[in-house]
Amino acid sequence: MATIKLNSGYDMPQVGFGLWKVDNNVCADTVYKAIKAGYRLFDGACDYGNEVEAGQGVARAIKEGIVKREELFIVSKLWNSFHDGDRVEPIAKKQLADWGLEYFDLYLIHFPVALAYVDPSVRYPPGWHYDGKSTIKRSNASIQETWTAMESLVEKGLTKSIGISNFQGQLIYDLLRYAKIRPATLQIEHHPYLVQPELIKLAKHEGIAVTAYSSFGPLSFLEFNMAHASAITPLLEETTITSLAQKYGKKPSQILLRWATQRGLAVIPKTLREENMKSNLDVTGWDLKQEDIDRISALDRNLRFNQPTNYFSTDDLWIFA
Amino acid sequence: MATIKLNSGYDMPQVGFGLWKVDNNVCADTVYKAIKAGYRLFDGACDYGNEVEAGQGVARAIKEGIVKREELFIVSKLWNSFHDGDRVEPIAKKQLADWGLEYFDLYLIHFPVALAYVDPSVRYPPGWHYDGKSTIKRSNASIQETWTAMESLVEKGLTKSIGISNFQGQLIYDLLRYAKIRPATLQIEHHPYLVQPELIKLAKHEGIAVTAYSSFGPLSFLEFNMAHASAITPLLEETTITSLAQKYGKKPSQILLRWATQRGLAVIPKTLREENMKSNLDVTGWDLKQEDIDRISALDRNLRFNQPTNYFSTDDLWIFA
Repeated sequence: MATIKLNSGYDMPQVGFGLWKVDNNVCADTVYKAIKAGYRLFDGACDYGNEVEAGQGVARAIKEGIVKREELFIVSKLWNSFHDGDRVEPIAKKQLADWGLEYFDLYLIHFPVALAYVDPSVRYPPGWHYDGKSTIKRSNASIQETWTAMESLVEKGLTKSIGISNFQGQLIYDLLRYAKIRPATLQIEHHPYLVQPELIKLAKHEGIAVTAYSSFGPLSFLEFNMAHASAITPLLEETTITSLAQKYGKKPSQILLRWATQRGLAVIPKTLREENMKSNLDVTGWDLKQEDIDRISALDRNLRFNQPTNYFSTDDLWIFA
Repeated sequence: MATIKLNSGYDMPQVGFGLWKVDNNVCADTVYKAIKAGYRLFDGACDYGNEVEAGQGVARAIKEGIVKREELFIVSKLWNSFHDGDRVEPIAKKQLADWGLEYFDLYLIHFPVALAYVDPSVRYPPGWHYDGKSTIKRSNASIQETWTAMESLVEKGLTKSIGISNFQGQLIYDLLRYAKIRPATLQIEHHPYLVQPELIKLAKHEGIAVTAYSSFGPLSFLEFNMAHASAITPLLEETTITSLAQKYGKKPSQILLRWATQRGLAVIPKTLREENMKSNLDVTGWDLKQEDIDRISALDRNLRFNQPTNYFSTDDLWIFA
């Protein structure tokens, strides 16, 4: 299995399984089946609301001897409402307990957004709104405060590596100025409609591995009734992609994933279908021609789907401005 | 004269005069003439290398009784190589001495880029490169460290207000978490080819006034031999702009400036010609129709000219990634 050497010294599988929007009622079974299909990296988060079930799938696979804990690479993420320095360790421990794990392999700041603390006994996962409805309530925890607390998780053995997600270049440069432990990975929305070549160059230059999420583009966002997600040609039906699928004898989904992995990125596709689990995993042992990679990259429209202003009405969270 | 009320309590003229690329040999005379033409705000910077001469123009106008110091609004900027906390006050004092002033009205962080200190006795202005040629050498001064030093300039009376320039949204949000004094203004590249509507919404929501620079777009950058600046239709010749100039009986330059001021932004055009000094100042007393503002905004191509990677070869400064 292809891996990426992180700046923390650990090897990260280049292809993993993303747990966003995996329903609770199928999550344990899906994780179990994905392990059987060969997945070793699972990308979870507090916000996905399925860490208990994901952990059950992992536990079953370990119990049945399919895999050992040390062969897995479990990723989770710190939610926005736990950015205050003293909230980081308790919530990481709760998330570990939910998974039934002693440590994460990688723990990320999910968004560079500090929201007011919501106690897990009140609502969990807390989501974007303080009251569960419409109120945005910020915290004044700086990214430096949060990152310092993330670093202490490594020192305490609660996670092997730490990283960031959805960060812009300037905030990454600022974090690198004070970080005692540099972020091992940067997870970003990345597909042919949102290529972000400069951000990827920045990460590469700084020795930060990049994980692409939403590799299939607007597909992940149709359910949110986003006008610009439904208005654009789905990437799996886009003619450049489908013609390359024919040319290489692969599925369009594999073309999209290989476009990312061949450029050195990690991917974390999600699927509930076992045949797609297998094909999504088969995206490292064959190559696209450079000219075909360039044709895919030329589809770039700087079109971002995953931002708060696409989920709900707000004039208070322009986090990619 | 139209003004913008800053969150610091001071009034800032909405139309000012930009000193970038005003040659040393004409700078004093240009500033003097601009004051006679009615300009009260001058936008300078260490990096422009003409603060001594700008100050001479100011001094002459004051000496001749054309204007009083307190009627002027002098803006300057902290260069990248003075981000270390202990370098901020000394360089601000040097810049004040160059201008011959007791205080600035507004002092900005020029870029969110911390470079290693270069002593003014070695090279001034220092520019981007540590050795004056090709070496980029960073400092580890965080934006928080620099901002704290900026705040102390206010406390010491060296500047009335402080602000930022060329900052992205996420770094602004982070700064607001620890700022004791919020930035009064955000200065950004802004023209119909680079509208940045979300960044402007963010600033408006946070009570930060926005100053637009490079209002005429690629024009300012042709001399750098930028392919994408010379490849695109100059805004002053763009048909939407020229047809609106005819419709309103104004110059294309005035249409571009009014498009910004009518939306609440400040502008800082530069010209050496006295007739243009007058027309550039006449961009607040008349209105464009909303539909015409929208037509101009629709020219947006997210096309940025002012970034290090456009000036020189670097794989180390992706500051708008």
